[in-house]
Amino acid sequence: MVAFSNMAAIFGIAGLVLAAAIYNWISKQSDGNDLMRKLAGQIHEGAMVFLKREYKILAIFVVVVFVLLSVAISAKTGIAFIVGAICSVLAGFFGMNAATKANVRTAAAANSGGGQEGALSMAFFGGTVMGLSVASLGLLGVGVLFWYFDVLGNAANVTIINGFSMGASSIALFARVGGGIFTKTADVGADLVGKVEANIPEDDPRNPAVIADNVGDCVGDVAGMGADLFESYVGAIISTIFIGSTIGTALGANSSSAMALPLLLAMMGLIASSIGIASMKVLASKNPAVALRSATGIATIIFIILAYFITSALGLNAGVFGSVLFGAAGGILIGWLTEHYTGTGGKPVGEIVAASETGVATNIIGGFAVGLESVCAPLLVLAIVTLVSNGWAGLYGISIAAVGMLATIGITMSVDAYGPIADNAGGITEMSELGPETRKITDGLDALGNTTAAIGKGFAIGSAALTALAFYAAYTKAADLQQINLTEAKVVAGMFIGGAIPFLIGALTMKSVGKAAFIMIQEIRRQFREIPGIMEGTADPDSARCIDISTQAALKEMVLPGVVAVIAPIVVGYLMGKEALGGMLAGALLSGVLVALLMANAGGAWDNAKKEIEDGKLGGKGSEAHKAAVVGDTVGDPMKDTSGPSMNILIKLMSIVSLVLAPLF
Amino acid sequence: MVAFSNMAAIFGIAGLVLAAAIYNWISKQSDGNDLMRKLAGQIHEGAMVFLKREYKILAIFVVVVFVLLSVAISAKTGIAFIVGAICSVLAGFFGMNAATKANVRTAAAANSGGGQEGALSMAFFGGTVMGLSVASLGLLGVGVLFWYFDVLGNAANVTIINGFSMGASSIALFARVGGGIFTKTADVGADLVGKVEANIPEDDPRNPAVIADNVGDCVGDVAGMGADLFESYVGAIISTIFIGSTIGTALGANSSSAMALPLLLAMMGLIASSIGIASMKVLASKNPAVALRSATGIATIIFIILAYFITSALGLNAGVFGSVLFGAAGGILIGWLTEHYTGTGGKPVGEIVAASETGVATNIIGGFAVGLESVCAPLLVLAIVTLVSNGWAGLYGISIAAVGMLATIGITMSVDAYGPIADNAGGITEMSELGPETRKITDGLDALGNTTAAIGKGFAIGSAALTALAFYAAYTKAADLQQINLTEAKVVAGMFIGGAIPFLIGALTMKSVGKAAFIMIQEIRRQFREIPGIMEGTADPDSARCIDISTQAALKEMVLPGVVAVIAPIVVGYLMGKEALGGMLAGALLSGVLVALLMANAGGAWDNAKKEIEDGKLGGKGSEAHKAAVVGDTVGDPMKDTSGPSMNILIKLMSIVSLVLAPLF
Repeated sequence: MVAFSNMAAIFGIAGLVLAAAIYNWISKQSDGNDLMRKLAGQIHEGAMVFLKREYKILAIFVVVVFVLLSVAISAKTGIAFIVGAICSVLAGFFGMNAATKANVRTAAAANSGGGQEGALSMAFFGGTVMGLSVASLGLLGVGVLFWYFDVLGNAANVTIINGFSMGASSIALFARVGGGIFTKTADVGADLVGKVEANIPEDDPRNPAVIADNVGDCVGDVAGMGADLFESYVGAIISTIFIGSTIGTALGANSSSAMALPLLLAMMGLIASSIGIASMKVLASKNPAVALRSATGIATIIFIILAYFITSALGLNAGVFGSVLFGAAGGILIGWLTEHYTGTGGKPVGEIVAASETGVATNIIGGFAVGLESVCAPLLVLAIVTLVSNGWAGLYGISIAAVGMLATIGITMSVDAYGPIADNAGGITEMSELGPETRKITDGLDALGNTTAAIGKGFAIGSAALTALAFYAAYTKAADLQQINLTEAKVVAGMFIGGAIPFLIGALTMKSVGKAAFIMIQEIRRQFREIPGIMEGTADPDSARCIDISTQAALKEMVLPGVVAVIAPIVVGYLMGKEALGGMLAGALLSGVLVALLMANAGGAWDNAKKEIEDGKLGGKGSEAHKAAVVGDTVGDPMKDTSGPSMNILIKLMSIVSLVLAPLF
Repeated sequence: MVAFSNMAAIFGIAGLVLAAAIYNWISKQSDGNDLMRKLAGQIHEGAMVFLKREYKILAIFVVVVFVLLSVAISAKTGIAFIVGAICSVLAGFFGMNAATKANVRTAAAANSGGGQEGALSMAFFGGTVMGLSVASLGLLGVGVLFWYFDVLGNAANVTIINGFSMGASSIALFARVGGGIFTKTADVGADLVGKVEANIPEDDPRNPAVIADNVGDCVGDVAGMGADLFESYVGAIISTIFIGSTIGTALGANSSSAMALPLLLAMMGLIASSIGIASMKVLASKNPAVALRSATGIATIIFIILAYFITSALGLNAGVFGSVLFGAAGGILIGWLTEHYTGTGGKPVGEIVAASETGVATNIIGGFAVGLESVCAPLLVLAIVTLVSNGWAGLYGISIAAVGMLATIGITMSVDAYGPIADNAGGITEMSELGPETRKITDGLDALGNTTAAIGKGFAIGSAALTALAFYAAYTKAADLQQINLTEAKVVAGMFIGGAIPFLIGALTMKSVGKAAFIMIQEIRRQFREIPGIMEGTADPDSARCIDISTQAALKEMVLPGVVAVIAPIVVGYLMGKEALGGMLAGALLSGVLVALLMANAGGAWDNAKKEIEDGKLGGKGSEAHKAAVVGDTVGDPMKDTSGPSMNILIKLMSIVSLVLAPLF
């Protein structure tokens, strides 16, 4: 059974082949009329230009870090770092290519005989390319490295693979922060000038920032989210391998079994995800919400069953399986909790709607209060998963719980990527005036996308927290720390410093969006003023210019947060020692999770409060309450899509940097 | 020298005599014309009714906890608890009485020959009654208990006095939360209906909630702040006595010296504060800002000099004095940092002003970003003070640093209480139409009050954090914990739970204000609608009704947060053990300080961004930018005056409850 884990890379390749087949199928479907093709082309082009420019900057960063790592730690760690970075980049590239093809084909399917079923299938399978790429490239990369360094005995120890995680994490931070800034610069700019000043609807083709907004959805929610989850996925696997290498026979089997388990679980997760994906062929004719939930549910159940047999076959005790189960359940639970706090029809969002009646101020206060409250239950879930899995299987339990949460990433990420594709499809439908019937289908899929996005965000935060915890546990092993003692002043001081960093990154990213949106607003106003015929629809807006503003802002503003996240643990580790660094990681983890949940959920709740009003509450569109809710939604935008998600990576990146560099402190 | 510390109670009595003399002098000054007397009477009456009703509820709570403590720990701890609660209540009562007399006399002085100098003197000396009461009752209470239990040898150990701190802390939470809800219910309600809907100016006598708003300033900013600082002050002294009792001769002298030092420092601080207060007799003729700063500066310098001699005389090493010095400097520094982030004319507030140009959403995003950023530097200061003072004198160093920060509370609290008195004076001036000359004087004093309030808030947070840290250190000693090990899952789980609690309390208090303000808004609208002649000024509004709404809301809503704060550590301590409780306290401390700084500074910055626009930027009053800024200010109100300040007490109360109950876990 242990030897079977050497097949991880083969599984990865198989997954990629499946993704390629789906991509091929997508490409062959109808992409609608000329206008649709033109719009989709602009979005695709914008996304690819952004990615390429982003990758150029990242290449410099990656090479510099590679050299430093090779000198300071070892060339092999450096190589693992580069491979991790490349896998993350490839996953993003594949997924984005598919998403920017599937968007227009979803609109075309909705407009043709395909109807809702066809459109749902297209949006979902578009997302599966990202989902399968993330899972497969993770398995391939980690599998090859594990096989080469460990199985073939080419490395002194297993810590080399940590470099892979660090590579993935570095790319992820830039992708998340850059993508987040890109998307919200365009979104906030488009909304404030278009909807508020010029009184034209959302996704109106006359608005020069609308294409940039659609590009942003892909860049932020597909590539950014993908890089985030890729990093959690490989991080959970790698830290479990590392911790597994240290435990001896404590859990009923030897270290080889403990090290093989995370890879085997990931392989089972890929199988389960593929079955879940395939089931959509049948499910697509059902209610879309039920279909997506069923596909995920099928994958999860299959995974749990397979995980049970694998764990038993390896001779690991029942507590290890219990931890996997708790991890998987915890991820689902945090997703549900996010839904509860941000979903339409629920009490929290209802409170914000009610508060909108007395104006903007009470809407904002209400949303902020919901955000504050929403952190409590997920934190409790995390505390329980931590306690229970640790009780059952020690630190190994915590990290294998993270693997349990993330093993079915293939389907989870597919559903996540479905959202922005459906959103894009709605935009293209609106811009190419495909008529109310088609718009109704894409609107319905888009609304469902908001729910899946909310759940996905909660899941991303929960899994990031658990992965960071796994890194943290691995760090204590790597640094050979018997204790990180909170009765020591240096640990407390480290905790204070660590706790402040997510707030700093939050401030930097919020300000970045503010600054860039300001430039975007000026540009949109200028175009409305200076391009004759733009408002009459007889002249095209200069969309490329807006895309360029978003791109430049994203690339410029992503650097500082990234550098802070990498440098801070190094500085604290050198100056204050490895215990203080442990305190810092704990502080950053706590504070990062709190801020991430606050921002994601407040933002999501504001968004849906606006939707509830638009659907007719308190006077509907155009009412004073609606105006208040629009402001709340705009405030929530950078929180939920830029700053909040950045926290996920921040806490992981800080921990993995500490883990990789632990030998130096 | 050690024996001299037995005089603490005598110093306390002397301070109270001085406060009484000042109160007597205030009472004899002119309280203006009949209308002013009537308005002042309503404010005074409203405040006293609130306090009495609040105290009735607190009495029940205090008696219940007394019984539980007496059974679970010891009758002596129970008695100390009651004495602490009574001292806190008395300080609030004395201070409020003086403040609600000084407000109208400040207006009268500004209106008569006294001019700015007379008005500044009256507002400042009105505040000194609170300042001296806090310092003196603290010294008296702790002094008597220390003398009785320790010096006379009536108790097995010094932990008994911890009960005093717990008493002070319990009252403080209710006073802060209740006061905060009271004041913002009135303020938000008055602003939203008066300024926004009815288009009448602030403090207009036709607005039924204006009196309640003025009552709220006293209830929240005088009584609430006083109870907060009282608790930090006695908490710092008591935890230092406790830690001092455990250190033997480690710091150059024996434990008796180490236990005497905090009391002696507090006595010196009272002397220094009294000199600073007296210096206002001369300084009052200068520029008000310079005068207040000089008085504080004089007191601080005298204190530092006295502290140096006292520390040397006790035979304690230079590191102990260094810790005192760092504590004092840290408090001042955090105050300055707060000023930087929230003060008019500075870069952060300027950024919010600029963001207001593009509307409410960008104003809110800008203010939130400033709040996020503003936590970093103070956290770094706290980390440095912790590291350095611990390096010099161990855990004793941390707690004596807190004493150093708080010893001159007599003058610090006086300056804090000056703010709401000046604010009230402005309100009374406006309502009794004393003319532009007088209004100009009270406006100037009120504006200065905003600065002192901002600095005071920063100081309150910083000192609360350091006091909580001292409690936390004392807890580790009392629970005999060699370590609170962050590599153990239960500690991490405890940290997660602890970190969530400030968010929960923040949500509860924000929602309380939201709910209560909603009722207030309905009532104000009803009065405008139903009372004939109210808008013409021929009929009086029903102010009492609005005061009653605020009172009821405050009393009802303060209970749950208070109970959570007391129960949470008990539950975690029982279920998860004392190490997990340690993790919980650390998590709550970190998260509480972060939230407190975020809320206080974002709120303060929004407030002053509005003021800068009102002073003429971006089109001044009535402009679109101004409307945006008014919303930002309203959003910030409950953050900076209700939820934010509650965090200070929350982190202290949770720690002191754990400290007192440590023997049970």
